Amino acid sequence: MREREVLRFLAQRVPNAGDDCAVIPLGRTHLVLTTDMLWRQADLPEGVTAYTIGWRAVAVSFSDVAAMGAKPLGVVLALGAPGFERDFLDQLLQGVLDCCQSVGAPYLGGDLSQHEELTLVSSALGEAKDPVRRSGAKPGELVCVTGQLGRTAAALRLFEQKEYEQANRLFRFVPRAAEGLALAPYATSMIDISDGLARSLYQLGESSRAGFRVRYRDLPVLSETEELAQSERELREMALFTGEDFELLFTLSPSLLREAENAAPFTVIGEVIKEGVWLEDGEKTVHLEDRGYEH
Amino acid sequence: MREREVLRFLAQRVPNAGDDCAVIPLGRTHLVLTTDMLWRQADLPEGVTAYTIGWRAVAVSFSDVAAMGAKPLGVVLALGAPGFERDFLDQLLQGVLDCCQSVGAPYLGGDLSQHEELTLVSSALGEAKDPVRRSGAKPGELVCVTGQLGRTAAALRLFEQKEYEQANRLFRFVPRAAEGLALAPYATSMIDISDGLARSLYQLGESSRAGFRVRYRDLPVLSETEELAQSERELREMALFTGEDFELLFTLSPSLLREAENAAPFTVIGEVIKEGVWLEDGEKTVHLEDRGYEH
Repeated sequence: MREREVLRFLAQRVPNAGDDCAVIPLGRTHLVLTTDMLWRQADLPEGVTAYTIGWRAVAVSFSDVAAMGAKPLGVVLALGAPGFERDFLDQLLQGVLDCCQSVGAPYLGGDLSQHEELTLVSSALGEAKDPVRRSGAKPGELVCVTGQLGRTAAALRLFEQKEYEQANRLFRFVPRAAEGLALAPYATSMIDISDGLARSLYQLGESSRAGFRVRYRDLPVLSETEELAQSERELREMALFTGEDFELLFTLSPSLLREAENAAPFTVIGEVIKEGVWLEDGEKTVHLEDRGYEH
Repeated sequence: MREREVLRFLAQRVPNAGDDCAVIPLGRTHLVLTTDMLWRQADLPEGVTAYTIGWRAVAVSFSDVAAMGAKPLGVVLALGAPGFERDFLDQLLQGVLDCCQSVGAPYLGGDLSQHEELTLVSSALGEAKDPVRRSGAKPGELVCVTGQLGRTAAALRLFEQKEYEQANRLFRFVPRAAEGLALAPYATSMIDISDGLARSLYQLGESSRAGFRVRYRDLPVLSETEELAQSERELREMALFTGEDFELLFTLSPSLLREAENAAPFTVIGEVIKEGVWLEDGEKTVHLEDRGYEH
């Protein structure tokens, strides 16, 4: 089975699958819990530093917590490494701690074991009175995105070019924890972009039983990405499909736009429609392909 | 660095390291969170079934939650596997679900990625008004253990002998969730035995700044372990050092013994003393070595 099929198969066995985190009711509130696995070979390009590895390992989980509109409570990290060199561990842990500080949540410890390939699994916990699901988008609402697209695509290109310093900087994205919390009262649905904008639109659409019309000219693309793309075609690929942007994609009622804009910065990129995912591209409106980054 | 040194090094950077779970205050209660990593090569012997792998992957984390005297709220699982065969996944997931049912907590989903070696990381969440730490043991108290010792040692021997059915059965220990909850009001300190009784006594002693005197004749050893051991010496090794028994080791005041015995079954194996870990062995009292199972 391919990854997506397997996930669908597994989802049938889990009661509330399909959101960025699992949701657990507790008293008058809800806990959210997520787990993410990173491997050296698949997820960490040549030139990535121990500090960046640590940062990113926990950032991906905090991003899932943010996508639920939840307050991050902390993170644990399971680490498998071929050896335990003090410098490497020290820098990795510093990355973990600094990323935790960037979202204001503690690092809570973890597990450690020796293993051939570097493997990191972070599990982050959060709390939200009313977690934002993927399922609330309704036709007529606006679809919006925080920050800028193409960040990881640009970083990967820079790693290839051995521009390691800039590559590492871009690879260490700051999880949208504050934005997730600030937008939670307005967002009707939310997801973090971990498999590309296109795939994330489809995921939001599937859960909400809705579609989207997005304007290419309104997509906020990172300036580094625009500079690095060698053609217009490649730029589109990087902005729409490469994935792992870890920005928040969400929907809201047009009547709340002004209020939401005061809560956090974001860009309106299109509208929720009844079905299908469409891209307004100059004078044409084309069907956006359902493909993205498979881990 | 060796695993234990590294753990000590990492612990210096984590505020409340040293318990089976991290503790997070939330309102009037506490959440506990733990993460555990299993690898095919290091942790899963030849002959282990997919069902047992799934069961055990989550059982180890639920055991940590139990050791805090916490109510299990659920578990997530990150799975890295070389391929995704439907039968294998189906049986693995059934093991996960059945183990969850055994402790009355839901399986909450997870992450999935392709990888050469089978890797499982479970993260379990629990809740306790007053989590039981490792640090509360005081001289004069009793030291006690749930269930029986030598279970995983017996299972590993049976795997070697290719007695796979019995081996798998023993390998699928039921986490002491109910016992942990029932004993929490009485226990002054608690830990699950994941690196052998000896190592766990030392861990409890370090955190509590206390020692123990344990009577060998009072140790509850599993009958299968007694049968499988080929010498008295080997039996001691299996009961004291092999580790991964996943029983609860805890201390309590003698005045609460009767009440605690009504709450859950366990065996008194010795007393808390000021320092050192000693074994009364027939007519001799010997110093118990500080060694155990390193993962």
